[in-house]
Amino acid sequence: MDTGLIGLGNMGAGIARSLLRAGHKVVVYNRTREKAEALAANGAKVAANIAEACATGVVLTMLADDSAVEAAVFGEGGILKWLPKGGLHVSLSTIGVRLSERLTNEHGQAGQHYVAAPVFGRPEAAENARLAVVAAGRAEAIERCRPLFESMGPKLMIAGTWPSQANVVKLTGNFMIASAVESLAEGIAFARKAGLDAAAVLDFLTSTLFTAPLYKTYGTLIVEDRYEPAGFALPLGLKDVRLVLQAAEANKVAMPVASVLRDRMITALARGHEKSDWSVIGRVAAEDAGLPGRG
Amino acid sequence: MDTGLIGLGNMGAGIARSLLRAGHKVVVYNRTREKAEALAANGAKVAANIAEACATGVVLTMLADDSAVEAAVFGEGGILKWLPKGGLHVSLSTIGVRLSERLTNEHGQAGQHYVAAPVFGRPEAAENARLAVVAAGRAEAIERCRPLFESMGPKLMIAGTWPSQANVVKLTGNFMIASAVESLAEGIAFARKAGLDAAAVLDFLTSTLFTAPLYKTYGTLIVEDRYEPAGFALPLGLKDVRLVLQAAEANKVAMPVASVLRDRMITALARGHEKSDWSVIGRVAAEDAGLPGRG
Amino acid sequence: MDTGLIGLGNMGAGIARSLLRAGHKVVVYNRTREKAEALAANGAKVAANIAEACATGVVLTMLADDSAVEAAVFGEGGILKWLPKGGLHVSLSTIGVRLSERLTNEHGQAGQHYVAAPVFGRPEAAENARLAVVAAGRAEAIERCRPLFESMGPKLMIAGTWPSQANVVKLTGNFMIASAVESLAEGIAFARKAGLDAAAVLDFLTSTLFTAPLYKTYGTLIVEDRYEPAGFALPLGLKDVRLVLQAAEANKVAMPVASVLRDRMITALARGHEKSDWSVIGRVAAEDAGLPGRG
Amino acid sequence: MDTGLIGLGNMGAGIARSLLRAGHKVVVYNRTREKAEALAANGAKVAANIAEACATGVVLTMLADDSAVEAAVFGEGGILKWLPKGGLHVSLSTIGVRLSERLTNEHGQAGQHYVAAPVFGRPEAAENARLAVVAAGRAEAIERCRPLFESMGPKLMIAGTWPSQANVVKLTGNFMIASAVESLAEGIAFARKAGLDAAAVLDFLTSTLFTAPLYKTYGTLIVEDRYEPAGFALPLGLKDVRLVLQAAEANKVAMPVASVLRDRMITALARGHEKSDWSVIGRVAAEDAGLPGRG
Repeated sequence: MDTGLIGLGNMGAGIARSLLRAGHKVVVYNRTREKAEALAANGAKVAANIAEACATGVVLTMLADDSAVEAAVFGEGGILKWLPKGGLHVSLSTIGVRLSERLTNEHGQAGQHYVAAPVFGRPEAAENARLAVVAAGRAEAIERCRPLFESMGPKLMIAGTWPSQANVVKLTGNFMIASAVESLAEGIAFARKAGLDAAAVLDFLTSTLFTAPLYKTYGTLIVEDRYEPAGFALPLGLKDVRLVLQAAEANKVAMPVASVLRDRMITALARGHEKSDWSVIGRVAAEDAGLPGRG
Repeated sequence: MDTGLIGLGNMGAGIARSLLRAGHKVVVYNRTREKAEALAANGAKVAANIAEACATGVVLTMLADDSAVEAAVFGEGGILKWLPKGGLHVSLSTIGVRLSERLTNEHGQAGQHYVAAPVFGRPEAAENARLAVVAAGRAEAIERCRPLFESMGPKLMIAGTWPSQANVVKLTGNFMIASAVESLAEGIAFARKAGLDAAAVLDFLTSTLFTAPLYKTYGTLIVEDRYEPAGFALPLGLKDVRLVLQAAEANKVAMPVASVLRDRMITALARGHEKSDWSVIGRVAAEDAGLPGRG
Repeated sequence: MDTGLIGLGNMGAGIARSLLRAGHKVVVYNRTREKAEALAANGAKVAANIAEACATGVVLTMLADDSAVEAAVFGEGGILKWLPKGGLHVSLSTIGVRLSERLTNEHGQAGQHYVAAPVFGRPEAAENARLAVVAAGRAEAIERCRPLFESMGPKLMIAGTWPSQANVVKLTGNFMIASAVESLAEGIAFARKAGLDAAAVLDFLTSTLFTAPLYKTYGTLIVEDRYEPAGFALPLGLKDVRLVLQAAEANKVAMPVASVLRDRMITALARGHEKSDWSVIGRVAAEDAGLPGRG
Repeated sequence: MDTGLIGLGNMGAGIARSLLRAGHKVVVYNRTREKAEALAANGAKVAANIAEACATGVVLTMLADDSAVEAAVFGEGGILKWLPKGGLHVSLSTIGVRLSERLTNEHGQAGQHYVAAPVFGRPEAAENARLAVVAAGRAEAIERCRPLFESMGPKLMIAGTWPSQANVVKLTGNFMIASAVESLAEGIAFARKAGLDAAAVLDFLTSTLFTAPLYKTYGTLIVEDRYEPAGFALPLGLKDVRLVLQAAEANKVAMPVASVLRDRMITALARGHEKSDWSVIGRVAAEDAGLPGRG
């Protein structure tokens, strides 16, 4: 089918190629035009502005954070203005519940449709159509873009008819990943301080109880004290925890482990780890235990 | 080989049957004699007292907690008195680092050997020789009981030459399990409060990111708000967290998530959940969010 | 001197009367006009709108929260529009650091002056000119309104030349008050559960170590389990903790006790204590300990 | 009246002098005899061993921690053996609830009486009869030693008839002091990071809201980053927090701020502050915020 796609970072570019490979016609737009032009070789049509990316009547956005989405939608020359009546905006970004609700309202008032469809997976998964997609919105709107979701990955969850419900699932998942990283951080610091070979402990635990790949991935970063280059940078991780806490507070849910995660990540920032992977909370745990880095 | 085995709760009895099935000769002892006699049908020899269980020169213990181990070892007519010089005590129980160090010292002074070999796995795993064993102690002592470990399960980690190192690995693992349960508790409470179908969210998360079986197991208990009968009772869970915190403090390691776990479990006890599974912290999270039980 | 005053809740009305008593000419404005008219008897001039309250060239605002201040300043017919060039806006409200910075910038761009001057003290203190004022801003702007501050109470701190610094001091103080309340909540729950007479314990502690009046005030509310009517309502307390956490995060400072306070207050909200005094976290602590209310 | 006194550290020696000044006859004993002999000049009679200190039939103990009390009471040649039937042991030390209960039982079985009477106050207060005493035990036992309490300070609370109730009050008080220190630590780190003059902020807060002297005392240590020499050493502070958490857990009371205190103090120990005042958690907060020391 025909679709626009705005936002061509690592995730967005990978999704564009997966969609093109599956036979969709994709009009791509990026603030820095080079990133869009790089996709022409894959068959994408390059849009000069947001208006052109909206012309197909369906537009996906894959942007870094709430303010990037706000700028693309509500800004001068943004989606809200250019998407035709009856058009559909599908937000793939990890954004807050509050913004998702605002998008629902404002698109609705403009006679447009809105689906929230955040994704789980790293850039390789985007590239190889291995993402897991959580979509929410009106049933007919979701059906309309289902072919796009199916070209992004094998796993699709329909979370509900209210778009922000998909954002809640995404935030819950990211919270649980961050919790697993913190438990690795504390557990590894404890084992190291008690004189154990942390790599051997990690190998044992991940081959018996903690077989989900994320434990191996993040555990290895922590054991090797290797947080650069960042797969997912600390400030983005803190942003997600903040969105979790905001949405939970709006629902009157206390999440004490999320509070711990927030404190740890802030401390990591205060120690200058702005460019590190969010798993650098493993180094914070090690330092707090008086352990040296791995050099 | 010949071995004694003291402590025939669900775990101990399962281990006994796995050992017998593998061809070992096992002399079993339990304070309540009926549990020992039940194993006679499987080929076990029933000991009338601890002394008889020690006569083979190798004795395994699988007991509930530190004080049960202390009673069996240091008490009147205990292992320390009856195990022959050169004999070997293998402690399979989840006990504290401090007690494990005391056992090392006292057995050493008595001319006996001591190996700590706590296990991961639930009663079914004990029954079916699917346990994961973490052993630590002098190399020759470990080699001596390796045939027993190999009959308990396919996975053996040698954590070090100092017995208490195995206890650290076990406590680290249990801490990480409890952390995963707490992250499920908070995540599910948040999703429910936001109006989502918690079972669908759990199904999605455990089939994409959180594929380690423990997430499915505990997540289901929480989603179904079903904590009885207890697979692992709350007071035992709190005991393990307490042992983690004690050992971490002795090593000067702060573990803020372990502190959260402790507070949650104490609150669960204060609310009368003494007989529930330790995952009942899921109900505490739900109640604190103002959610009704599922009952 | 001549001044406008916008916002006539318990605090604002008390301040108005203290200023009038000290001989200042005060033009008062309130959204609900009755509250303004009630002050005419004390000699206040009643303004029909914000414009009239700004006509003197100096205007104080005493409003409930950030959004009330935003509405009064940036809204249609707001202060930003009506305050003359060279005019001075003094914000007495407890607002966030970010909003205070925005006020600094926008008033500056409009050729106006801005002083942040949040106050410590309850309505009685406002009434009786016993407030403590923390002011920050350019020296000449502060000197200009010093006569007003001196009529509000005996204690004035000049926190710095950048207005938001006063807000930081106010938030620090409120955080420390809330921390004291939480320590009372936990301590009293512990003492009660251990079978002690909580009133006697409180009396002993407040007459020896904790002689600051706030311990007596809040401790008594907790001991008597009496949270209505609210002196300072829970949602306002949570708002302040949120502002502390936001400002601390912006400065990369982790505040673990502030995180605990946030979780407690959210739990109190989830339990329906929206209309209670913020010290109702004392009931949360009691309930979590399995203690009955006093009711 | 006649009394023995065991334990002549800063606190014990001060108490001895206050008792002697008030006209009591005091038989003093200390493991290191020099400290006892130093008191001979003040009129004390020096005991050669615990037996001699028990001969009067009333013996006070003022020792560092649980294990010192255990050694003095239950050890070879200890109080339990030498105190006559009908004799009275008054424990002034800050000890755990569990040990206090054991003392109640064992003294009772030996036909002896036991009163717990921990004190609030620093060495100067002990020296100058300005301590606050919290006593608990059977009424007649308390009346018997009331003249001693009255010579230690002007403030006496009778907490109950069960001795360990006095220990609960003492632990509650120490918990609340530590909480106040942590709130100062976080608040001052926040204010400093936001560019404020911490000394001025402290001065303002302690002269308005936080007038209890402990805020000034500890706040000044934190603002000046001056933690040596220790008034109350970090390991003793951590010991008290541990006793609070143990007693609270035994009563099924979660105390999340006590958990934070524990984590902070452990981190301080891991950073090598073993010899510092317990308020060194102020430096931990500053370091975690990325602030330099004051050095």
